Amino acid sequence: KTSVAIREPSLGPVFGIKGGAAGGGYSQVLPMEDINLHFTGDMHAVTAANNNLAALIDNHIYNGNKLRINPRTITWRRVMDVNDRSLRNIVIGLGGKKQGVPREDGFDITPASEIMAILCLSNNLHELKEKISNITVGFTYDNEIIKVSDLGFQGAIAALLKDALKPNIVQTLENTPAFVHGGPFANIAQGTNSILATKTALKLSDYVVTEAGFGFDLGAEKFFDIVCKYGKFCPQAVVLVATVRALKHHGGVKLRDLDKPNLEAVEKGLANLGKHLDSIRKFGMRSVVAINKFASDTSEELELVEEYAKQNGFDAAVVDFWAKGGEGGLQLAEKTIKLIEDGKCNLKPLYNWESGAKEKIATIAKEIYGAEAIDFTSQANKDLRRIKKYGFEKLPICMAKTQKSLSDNPKLLGRPKDFLVTVRQIVVSSGAGFIIPITGNILRMPGLPKKPSAMDIDVDENGNISGLF
Amino acid sequence: KTSVAIREPSLGPVFGIKGGAAGGGYSQVLPMEDINLHFTGDMHAVTAANNNLAALIDNHIYNGNKLRINPRTITWRRVMDVNDRSLRNIVIGLGGKKQGVPREDGFDITPASEIMAILCLSNNLHELKEKISNITVGFTYDNEIIKVSDLGFQGAIAALLKDALKPNIVQTLENTPAFVHGGPFANIAQGTNSILATKTALKLSDYVVTEAGFGFDLGAEKFFDIVCKYGKFCPQAVVLVATVRALKHHGGVKLRDLDKPNLEAVEKGLANLGKHLDSIRKFGMRSVVAINKFASDTSEELELVEEYAKQNGFDAAVVDFWAKGGEGGLQLAEKTIKLIEDGKCNLKPLYNWESGAKEKIATIAKEIYGAEAIDFTSQANKDLRRIKKYGFEKLPICMAKTQKSLSDNPKLLGRPKDFLVTVRQIVVSSGAGFIIPITGNILRMPGLPKKPSAMDIDVDENGNISGLF
Amino acid sequence: KTSVAIREPSLGPVFGIKGGAAGGGYSQVLPMEDINLHFTGDMHAVTAANNNLAALIDNHIYNGNKLRINPRTITWRRVMDVNDRSLRNIVIGLGGKKQGVPREDGFDITPASEIMAILCLSNNLHELKEKISNITVGFTYDNEIIKVSDLGFQGAIAALLKDALKPNIVQTLENTPAFVHGGPFANIAQGTNSILATKTALKLSDYVVTEAGFGFDLGAEKFFDIVCKYGKFCPQAVVLVATVRALKHHGGVKLRDLDKPNLEAVEKGLANLGKHLDSIRKFGMRSVVAINKFASDTSEELELVEEYAKQNGFDAAVVDFWAKGGEGGLQLAEKTIKLIEDGKCNLKPLYNWESGAKEKIATIAKEIYGAEAIDFTSQANKDLRRIKKYGFEKLPICMAKTQKSLSDNPKLLGRPKDFLVTVRQIVVSSGAGFIIPITGNILRMPGLPKKPSAMDIDVDENGNISGLF
Amino acid sequence: KTSVAIREPSLGPVFGIKGGAAGGGYSQVLPMEDINLHFTGDMHAVTAANNNLAALIDNHIYNGNKLRINPRTITWRRVMDVNDRSLRNIVIGLGGKKQGVPREDGFDITPASEIMAILCLSNNLHELKEKISNITVGFTYDNEIIKVSDLGFQGAIAALLKDALKPNIVQTLENTPAFVHGGPFANIAQGTNSILATKTALKLSDYVVTEAGFGFDLGAEKFFDIVCKYGKFCPQAVVLVATVRALKHHGGVKLRDLDKPNLEAVEKGLANLGKHLDSIRKFGMRSVVAINKFASDTSEELELVEEYAKQNGFDAAVVDFWAKGGEGGLQLAEKTIKLIEDGKCNLKPLYNWESGAKEKIATIAKEIYGAEAIDFTSQANKDLRRIKKYGFEKLPICMAKTQKSLSDNPKLLGRPKDFLVTVRQIVVSSGAGFIIPITGNILRMPGLPKKPSAMDIDVDENGNISGLF
Repeated sequence: KTSVAIREPSLGPVFGIKGGAAGGGYSQVLPMEDINLHFTGDMHAVTAANNNLAALIDNHIYNGNKLRINPRTITWRRVMDVNDRSLRNIVIGLGGKKQGVPREDGFDITPASEIMAILCLSNNLHELKEKISNITVGFTYDNEIIKVSDLGFQGAIAALLKDALKPNIVQTLENTPAFVHGGPFANIAQGTNSILATKTALKLSDYVVTEAGFGFDLGAEKFFDIVCKYGKFCPQAVVLVATVRALKHHGGVKLRDLDKPNLEAVEKGLANLGKHLDSIRKFGMRSVVAINKFASDTSEELELVEEYAKQNGFDAAVVDFWAKGGEGGLQLAEKTIKLIEDGKCNLKPLYNWESGAKEKIATIAKEIYGAEAIDFTSQANKDLRRIKKYGFEKLPICMAKTQKSLSDNPKLLGRPKDFLVTVRQIVVSSGAGFIIPITGNILRMPGLPKKPSAMDIDVDENGNISGLF
Repeated sequence: KTSVAIREPSLGPVFGIKGGAAGGGYSQVLPMEDINLHFTGDMHAVTAANNNLAALIDNHIYNGNKLRINPRTITWRRVMDVNDRSLRNIVIGLGGKKQGVPREDGFDITPASEIMAILCLSNNLHELKEKISNITVGFTYDNEIIKVSDLGFQGAIAALLKDALKPNIVQTLENTPAFVHGGPFANIAQGTNSILATKTALKLSDYVVTEAGFGFDLGAEKFFDIVCKYGKFCPQAVVLVATVRALKHHGGVKLRDLDKPNLEAVEKGLANLGKHLDSIRKFGMRSVVAINKFASDTSEELELVEEYAKQNGFDAAVVDFWAKGGEGGLQLAEKTIKLIEDGKCNLKPLYNWESGAKEKIATIAKEIYGAEAIDFTSQANKDLRRIKKYGFEKLPICMAKTQKSLSDNPKLLGRPKDFLVTVRQIVVSSGAGFIIPITGNILRMPGLPKKPSAMDIDVDENGNISGLF
Repeated sequence: KTSVAIREPSLGPVFGIKGGAAGGGYSQVLPMEDINLHFTGDMHAVTAANNNLAALIDNHIYNGNKLRINPRTITWRRVMDVNDRSLRNIVIGLGGKKQGVPREDGFDITPASEIMAILCLSNNLHELKEKISNITVGFTYDNEIIKVSDLGFQGAIAALLKDALKPNIVQTLENTPAFVHGGPFANIAQGTNSILATKTALKLSDYVVTEAGFGFDLGAEKFFDIVCKYGKFCPQAVVLVATVRALKHHGGVKLRDLDKPNLEAVEKGLANLGKHLDSIRKFGMRSVVAINKFASDTSEELELVEEYAKQNGFDAAVVDFWAKGGEGGLQLAEKTIKLIEDGKCNLKPLYNWESGAKEKIATIAKEIYGAEAIDFTSQANKDLRRIKKYGFEKLPICMAKTQKSLSDNPKLLGRPKDFLVTVRQIVVSSGAGFIIPITGNILRMPGLPKKPSAMDIDVDENGNISGLF
Repeated sequence: KTSVAIREPSLGPVFGIKGGAAGGGYSQVLPMEDINLHFTGDMHAVTAANNNLAALIDNHIYNGNKLRINPRTITWRRVMDVNDRSLRNIVIGLGGKKQGVPREDGFDITPASEIMAILCLSNNLHELKEKISNITVGFTYDNEIIKVSDLGFQGAIAALLKDALKPNIVQTLENTPAFVHGGPFANIAQGTNSILATKTALKLSDYVVTEAGFGFDLGAEKFFDIVCKYGKFCPQAVVLVATVRALKHHGGVKLRDLDKPNLEAVEKGLANLGKHLDSIRKFGMRSVVAINKFASDTSEELELVEEYAKQNGFDAAVVDFWAKGGEGGLQLAEKTIKLIEDGKCNLKPLYNWESGAKEKIATIAKEIYGAEAIDFTSQANKDLRRIKKYGFEKLPICMAKTQKSLSDNPKLLGRPKDFLVTVRQIVVSSGAGFIIPITGNILRMPGLPKKPSAMDIDVDENGNISGLF
């Protein structure tokens, strides 16, 4: 008995550049449309919880501000499940004395909400409420920290999440159970589904496959260093997904030319795959490389990748789920099952939570990204001092970094070397229980492209939706 | 066979001053908690549709602004289902060249969204999409109107509402079917449930009871003049709900003293009831007065109200649903059924849609509110000129007015006379198909009170919610 | 010995629509250019004093806010001597915790600064400092009033004005001494030069001519009701200036057609002159009408005006200062001197300062503007309650009203009747010592026109300025 | 015949922390008060010119925006001669369609205005107007540069500066002529008086002493590399001013302990002086060190400094202008005159204007500040690309750097080594003709301290000002 435990899509990118996120071809979870739009409303519940908390904080300040919260220090931002760059930096509370207290604020996208992280990292409702209590919302005029528990709203906020906390179960096209629950992005949050869903899946299945968003450098590192510890998970193998197209891109080919055979570019791009394989070893993990086949891939290209993996000491298998469904991955499944038949888990975390924040950040940047050095802006250094002061140093690290490069610069492809990672700002999620260093130009609220996919989405009189995928 | 067709509650007030809105005592719709929190997610779908549209508009301007929309003229505001005064007036698009185009904006509460109004006034998905196409979002630099259809996003927005458009059916404590669908407020929107839900109920039942929010002056007037025409409804009777407590309040008694018997105050307050009875006649409607009994009411007080109704030519019945459930209203039911046994509908709309906007507004204010005169601020006059210019004059009127008084001043109790109604601004919902004159100090985004009810809401480890009612 | 005591021009309008303001033809004060640009720097000193005070207030709040000033209640705005609509409504203090406290603010034009009013209404440096002490800057969180004296900055602000308080003396083309000092606009402030300049002129001359800005309804009313009492002046006669062109305009002729003879229009416009003559009588004043001749006026037109004045009981004389200098007004001078040879002053103020603010405002609107009634917006009523609460009711009234009409609507020409004056807001200048009801759409910061006169201004290598007049 | 050519003080610091800036003891320029307050109004004229230009730009955009200026790219900020942190970052143009176009803006202090720089770097009125024409105000939607000449306002702005351009002459206590003209700060602008004043002084005197603000690293470097080339000056000697107190401070002594003798600290601090002496040599200049004596200095301390200078190959002299006036500097004068009796000027600029901007910045940072390396933030790199694109690479460099340290970190005292200079942003003054790299946390608008000196300033009835010094 097998099941998958994966994330829910966010509406923002669906209307933006990415289209739906429920699979494709013969490899889908159903009902596809619902999953891509509102699904069971979990995202909306997170949005509601996040923003009711924000309203309650501003209302506290407006109505006498008994806790003496300094409005300029509020760190709790609002969220919306939409790609909306206009809401990144706003001024609220305008319109005169009766319309709130003016201050600078902004919206992040819902998957970046600390509430989403908490939902995914809580083992039960009790823990959820406790984590909500621990959320930092801002500071007093005397620089004392203010948490949700100081305001007393943890119960109300938890009540809003009571149902969202429950894992959702749907199925794949081939009727495998699929737990689709929780949706943090991997570039700006922890990038994996909920602990509760995975645990439920583990109880019901012999094998559970979960996914960790974007590259190994983002989703997997966070899964191993944060989620596995909070969820007490010990995964037995990594299935590293590679595509000829992505390797070609890392080898210097433009997006529009990825369909053309280009063995040389694939070869050049393999260095990127190599870095991920090195990283897998650093965690002590075993792994099979799944080479996800596209129609335009040539057999030479596919073989080259397979060969490369093997030369590096990893088994590999070409998979073709899109065209053949589950059958397209039988070889991979067999190899993976064989790899873990001893039932052992050798996971070694990359860093010790007890280390200093700066050291932990540097470890990730150097070991996993391959950075030469790490630069903290003066804002980031200020944030670090505050982290120490308020006792958050021992929290794990949840990097915010572009998914387009191993570095923090989206333009550095392949396996960049001698680069500097710049930490611009460090945000603390004291409720979720991690520290978020924000690197490069990564933003926690995406924007829409010039031609948003919303232009193509339609629904007919009978409720048939088109243009979603 | 009987059913009720009522509205869904909004989360904002649930966390604010009002508590839940799913009934009480032996008169409830179930599951109470769910209905009060996220329910089937309709509110969230409306929020998502509204705000994705907003993001798409700002994105159009940011990305070259092909339609030459003047950002200062955008009338499409964002919404959130929360009481949040800080979001009433905001500045968005700050942070430099890459973070959007700076402009003034604001959030209304979700029940005030034109999308909510459209959802409730559409007879089917086709009409929904058409109405979305007709939404006015702003104006060009040359003062030409921009509708959603000019941008081409009606399909995507309608797709987000595909499921929310479907009526929700739940049940009462006594297992009567209850259609709970759509949630526009009656003080700032049309205040009645969806046309589709009522139509569905009508197909399945012999008698359908719907509700129209707040007083007859708000919900009922809008139901008769707007909804009945769009939905092609012809209701047969009005059940006017009166309470001794409310009449006492209109007779000058403070809220904290409403429990004490005070026959004199009830007598004084009856003028308010009288105005509503007069108004019912203006619509040509028959009516029974339902005197909703509270534990603190004396029989003298109850009789006084009953007597007053009869002297004014209306039958009346004391009801006690809270303590007795359906049985508590048997007499009322009999009287009502008797009243409509001829099956006739005599509804006469108050005004002709073909009349001028100013005239229609004045008719409502004078005939239904009892105003002496109506004052249009210079902003309102400017709005009226624009309404004429763009051809919206023949739309019906959806007044935004306080529910606390027949006038636009919440402090004028009883049946005020010689008062002036001030129209501060006039907003057009060209998609929903009505004009919204905003009177007095009414706001389309409420605020939270000093002690929000969220302070009392909690959820225990087993998911039991407390403090919601 | 004769002298004139007039106002200094503001730079804002010089760069905008109006061009210079130092006379023209053979009737000028010299050095014209300097007077029109920076002159002796009085305007700049007022700007500096006003804005240093603003910075000191915001700095107090930023640095601990010992006085508990509620930033949302600050009434002290910044000023700039420029026409700049973009500065009317701004948000300041943005950029994070170290960059001040965010709040809504705005700039008025320097002539509207209360500092300018104080400069013009102070009899000496001691009084100036006292008046500065009395300026209201805002309110505490407990609604207690905060004056400059509570902050202790009156000395520093007065020091900045030490030299600006001293009258400036220049001369006319014919070497008559001209005191040019103080520059409040008459539509938004008291519209007359400084008390000190006029007093100095009175000590040195047999006859002093002062000017009161715009029509009699604005400048003269304020001069008689505010300035004469603060300065203990008793003027002996009014010289009411009329032009055929202005009367034609009030008779319905467009600006571009004012050069064409149009006896009928002049006749129609005379009603406007008639209203001013009536008003002069209400103050008990004697008057000669000075008909200021333009090259395009016909003798029939000029005679018609003269005749009208005489029929109404006032003497009149055609003057031609522009073409002939002082000689062009000899007849007027003789008539005026004759009128006041008894040395008597019969000035009766229009209202008693001891009356209620509402009553005083209504008196001006009805008696001087000819309004039917006066409407106070809800904001204005709130302001009135505050004026009473803080003990400012007995201050005189300094109306802010358009100069283009006797009414508050710039489009109502001639002698409008049956009109309503709307008071939108009421500002208190507790330092200067008056109350400012803001009517209609009048703004305290002008904007520049599409083609600002700055486009034509130039200076050559030798410092010769062109385009200024 | 000797004269001095120095800068005018800014009002902002006078009201803030610094007090007046016209000398002290027996070494003053007179009239002290006037010079410290409004003086001849030059600062105000600069403010007026700067802000009228700003208003004209926003007005252009508001009125149709014929040039298609993208409001988000406007680089022309407003200025005010006041310390006002609240104005650093603001949003303007709020209040609806008629109140301008919303955008982010901010105020710098007047001495940081490009207009001030232009005033000081222009050799005549013609050049002034030309430089104004070349000011960059922003960019079009197509990224084309917009200069003042594109708008056509150079004539009007120059006209406002006609008189301010003329040097002011006052005198010292000992009746030496003193040209006090122009007031750019040295930490954020070029830090020296006007070219025209110095030229005038040179025509009238045998010896002219000018000052270059703050340390040699700021004022002198800019004087030699920017001003001397624009003004075609060739100075013959540097008088480097040192104080025991400052050296002690650089040796680690706190400000409150500077009065106590501490030979060791002086010795430690001498490294700072040493760096300046090295820098003087890099420019090929001869120099005498003037050791400015304070009452609390011991003779051992003074001697130690003198000795250090001599060991480094520079002559030195203790001066005591404060207590003795001119006589206190006779020895210095003699040594200086002797040094330059050959009349030669050996000035070698530090860098070639033709070099790349990055190279020139690095040269200054390394050679004059002693930095190990220089870091450009991503914003700064973006700015550099723009500088290249629009052809401004060959302009000289005007660093904005703290005066408190040789580095860009105010806390690094003495002669810091191995430090990094961070360039945060690079602003172009294409009118004045230089590039401004902004380093560290330096701000172009200061703030007021908790206890501003304005609290102590007063003026009595007779106009005597106290508390200014």
